[in-house]
Amino acid sequence: MAGRGGRPPAAAIRVNPDVQAGGHPHIATGRHEHKFGLDWSEAKRLYLAHRDSKWIRWQGISAHIGSQITTLVPFRRALRRLAGFVGELRRAQIDPRYLDVGGGLGVRYSDQMPPTRMEYARLVSQMVRKLGVHLLLEPGRSIIAPAAVLLTRVVYTKTNRGKTFVVVDSAMNDLMRPALYGAIHPITKTVREGKENDAGRKRVDIVGPVCETGDRFLRDWPLGEVKAGDLLAIWAAGAYGMSQASNYNARCRPAEVLVEGKRFRLIRRRETHNDLLRTDVLG
Amino acid sequence: MAGRGGRPPAAAIRVNPDVQAGGHPHIATGRHEHKFGLDWSEAKRLYLAHRDSKWIRWQGISAHIGSQITTLVPFRRALRRLAGFVGELRRAQIDPRYLDVGGGLGVRYSDQMPPTRMEYARLVSQMVRKLGVHLLLEPGRSIIAPAAVLLTRVVYTKTNRGKTFVVVDSAMNDLMRPALYGAIHPITKTVREGKENDAGRKRVDIVGPVCETGDRFLRDWPLGEVKAGDLLAIWAAGAYGMSQASNYNARCRPAEVLVEGKRFRLIRRRETHNDLLRTDVLG
Repeated sequence: MAGRGGRPPAAAIRVNPDVQAGGHPHIATGRHEHKFGLDWSEAKRLYLAHRDSKWIRWQGISAHIGSQITTLVPFRRALRRLAGFVGELRRAQIDPRYLDVGGGLGVRYSDQMPPTRMEYARLVSQMVRKLGVHLLLEPGRSIIAPAAVLLTRVVYTKTNRGKTFVVVDSAMNDLMRPALYGAIHPITKTVREGKENDAGRKRVDIVGPVCETGDRFLRDWPLGEVKAGDLLAIWAAGAYGMSQASNYNARCRPAEVLVEGKRFRLIRRRETHNDLLRTDVLG
Repeated sequence: MAGRGGRPPAAAIRVNPDVQAGGHPHIATGRHEHKFGLDWSEAKRLYLAHRDSKWIRWQGISAHIGSQITTLVPFRRALRRLAGFVGELRRAQIDPRYLDVGGGLGVRYSDQMPPTRMEYARLVSQMVRKLGVHLLLEPGRSIIAPAAVLLTRVVYTKTNRGKTFVVVDSAMNDLMRPALYGAIHPITKTVREGKENDAGRKRVDIVGPVCETGDRFLRDWPLGEVKAGDLLAIWAAGAYGMSQASNYNARCRPAEVLVEGKRFRLIRRRETHNDLLRTDVLG
């Protein structure tokens, strides 16, 4: 762009603040042994080496330490380091106008007790306000995870030596998180029940129809009695749900329905078997 | 079918032989705590209860103890149990003409030493021939896994504190097995190299461009020196590769090319971003 006579493009570096955080080894991203970002010493070298470049204008600094983080401690540590980096850059006459602190605020799937959005916001503003930068945040999961349920129907129930399996028509291809991260997504009937408390409910394994044992949503879960045809809700399925869905076992991905108050509309139709053959060019 | 005047349909029961086997907890399927099949006592009860049924004709018995099994021991145990079940049924005047022993024969991904097909065949024929049944086998992985490689290009390489990352243009969405099962798929350059032996090769982490640390194909792997643009082969990607691929991170699934000798042809085209929006009905 600059070479074609335009203004040099704005640039930022994603730095790796070397902070341990994240709910699962797969989604912890902020340590130096992770693939993301540049070590601060290398980032600083680049910022300085290209300070007076004709080709780029330094406009920011970015970091993301991980996902599904359930305490403020690693955020505080990372923000303190980032504030330090901003100070170092300013002392070197580089002014990062934008600070992208990434995302990572965890949600409550089962027994997690993540900070509230207010607590998180208070910490960030406390650490960042004095820097006078334009703040960028990436709080995707904390917004979208609790916003969706995966609805599924009981196909049948079976008992082997006292162990009860509830087979549902959703599977690991629709929601990978239990198989991929060992995630617990609570499952309940969609019809609210009365007195029965958790302790009194029958415990079952809730599994899908896919051809492997990993295709299990929950183990020994107090679902209570259900029968074929009953509708169940798999909770907090909005983040890394549909986006990680596949056609494993030649299964069509589900429809998506947007609900607002009492109105709803289809926003993604269910796939058909024809969709699965769409890229096939054997013919 | 029988109700409409036709012949009663042939039926078989998948039994759970309660044998421990399989290369990963996700794909071990033959224990009584797994969702698959019926416990023998329950299966036998059903066989006997419907022996003289007008609605079904018992024609077989089926089992599958797991996948990626690398010793003959669990196969021998399961076959012995199945042979015993066939005997019990015959003594009760039920003749299972078909015996489906499932699949499960493992393949060599890295350091596994699975039985050869010949050793497996010898065991099965030894155990099954005397039963005089029609044998069904499901050896999918052992045929298709070694038949495919996933080709990928180096996007760039980077070093953080002495740790080198080779970022490639394939990712966990294309081949889930490393993230999902901790599977080791060896990776080599596609151009054969000379003298250098494994011990002398530079060790690197080979990672994809997806936004999580789990998107790593291999850790501390003796790949040697590579540079952006180099083509690499991810080996034994034929089973549970494309079938588990997803559009995670809005990535298009790869093309599939069939090679026979020196001839090749495209059998599945690469997805486009339009394909990703195909089921979107927001418009």
